[in-house]
Amino acid sequence: MKLQTIKIGVVAPGSPLKREAADRVLTLAGALYPEAPPTIQFHDQCFDSWGHFAGTDDTRAQAFLDVAKDDTVDVVWFARGGYGAARLLDRIIPKLEDAARRKTYLGYSDAGSLMAALYKAGCADVVHGPMPTDINRDNGEEAVRRALSYLVERSADTLEPNASADLKCAAFNITILSHLIGTAHLPNLAGHVLMLEEVSEHMYRIDRSLCHITANPEIRQVAGLRMGQCTDVPENDPDFGQTADQVARHWCDVSGIPYLGTADIGHDIHNKIVPFGARVAT
Amino acid sequence: MKLQTIKIGVVAPGSPLKREAADRVLTLAGALYPEAPPTIQFHDQCFDSWGHFAGTDDTRAQAFLDVAKDDTVDVVWFARGGYGAARLLDRIIPKLEDAARRKTYLGYSDAGSLMAALYKAGCADVVHGPMPTDINRDNGEEAVRRALSYLVERSADTLEPNASADLKCAAFNITILSHLIGTAHLPNLAGHVLMLEEVSEHMYRIDRSLCHITANPEIRQVAGLRMGQCTDVPENDPDFGQTADQVARHWCDVSGIPYLGTADIGHDIHNKIVPFGARVAT
Repeated sequence: MKLQTIKIGVVAPGSPLKREAADRVLTLAGALYPEAPPTIQFHDQCFDSWGHFAGTDDTRAQAFLDVAKDDTVDVVWFARGGYGAARLLDRIIPKLEDAARRKTYLGYSDAGSLMAALYKAGCADVVHGPMPTDINRDNGEEAVRRALSYLVERSADTLEPNASADLKCAAFNITILSHLIGTAHLPNLAGHVLMLEEVSEHMYRIDRSLCHITANPEIRQVAGLRMGQCTDVPENDPDFGQTADQVARHWCDVSGIPYLGTADIGHDIHNKIVPFGARVAT
Repeated sequence: MKLQTIKIGVVAPGSPLKREAADRVLTLAGALYPEAPPTIQFHDQCFDSWGHFAGTDDTRAQAFLDVAKDDTVDVVWFARGGYGAARLLDRIIPKLEDAARRKTYLGYSDAGSLMAALYKAGCADVVHGPMPTDINRDNGEEAVRRALSYLVERSADTLEPNASADLKCAAFNITILSHLIGTAHLPNLAGHVLMLEEVSEHMYRIDRSLCHITANPEIRQVAGLRMGQCTDVPENDPDFGQTADQVARHWCDVSGIPYLGTADIGHDIHNKIVPFGARVAT
């Protein structure tokens, strides 16, 4: 099988990436695909810094738009989460060109704000999955290898096991989705299997966000909810007394959303690929 | 002037209160109004415990409904914030009786979830201000005295200085308001001066929540926004580089909401009284 030689542009809509992480990703890609390595271009903006963010809002939005309109780029890969993508939506979405709608977008966590808005704006190949920053985790190569295997080969074994081709799916960080509710950028998730995950939030906050999300009439149109990993949950004082799975079941019961079980997504190296919506033929 | 002898029922829709805090509030009320002390009845539910909460959802909702329908009770005073009021809205609001709409409701923080829903449901005298739990702060008697002075005497000097009688106002904790966006319980705040405050949230989270709140088309109908105290803000890594006031100004600029300056509300003993909506004659 001849591998596609794809071109991947990396931008950071939230927090900045370290250059050494980018270098490690390039080295890994070269080792994985020695004969036909994908071209991975880390935009300089990834390494910029403005307070909490990888450059000013203008800088981050412009970097995204530059890459999104470049017809030689096949994939926009989000470098890292953190916080900041939500700040850019009104600067980016009105300026999207047709070239942007033909690309693949890969990321998760904070990048989900932008992925939601891109999906709503008609980008058909928005994909939840690992980012370059995951190389920093213990055995993080496993996560980045999965992302590259999906982007280069569209390997079926990278997919979240429940994300079968005949299902519409979407995957979000719980806090990020909560902050999209009631805004112009919440996509139509009717009929989708909604997979959720969280990191570094107390269980009472996970409960509060799921109370919020499942109270929204549009979200109640999803086909069902699956709960991914909730990692690094700080100790609740007093003990919350319910697991993330129990919390999800509760809010599904309350809201009438079918609870479908767990999902293998989250802020860890096992984080699987979830293409949004109907599967794009490749 | 003959003081009104009012009856205050205290319930805890979120986290539980300690009995000794209740006792201290009763002692203070007796000392402040020795001739005609207000009757303050702490519902036993305030001291109940179920994981994070002051009793199960059923227990907390029923305690509220019992007090709300009691025609001898003039005021429902929320004992404490924490988390849990949002879980009760669908159990409480459909069961509200006319007696509930004739009462005063006083609280802030997490109780704001219920206060929002009560205001939306036609309760005309919903009031932001100190709660019994504030007695636990250093010099907390100052906050509780302010609450009682408003409830018993409707003292004008308890009011937030910008909450003049000819203005419609509302006051919320930022995180609590964010979690009401896009739900059935967000009240119509068109034409209101919206005062906001926060506690124990990183500045990037305050920014993220204000991004969310000000993106909502209904919120954009407010007359203006005032920023209260943001206390116990954990250190941002890296430094966020903007104060809460600057963050509020930014999102007002972006959203077209007039920024009106600061407000003297927050999780501290200075927390002033803000009656919601048009001022109720007493």
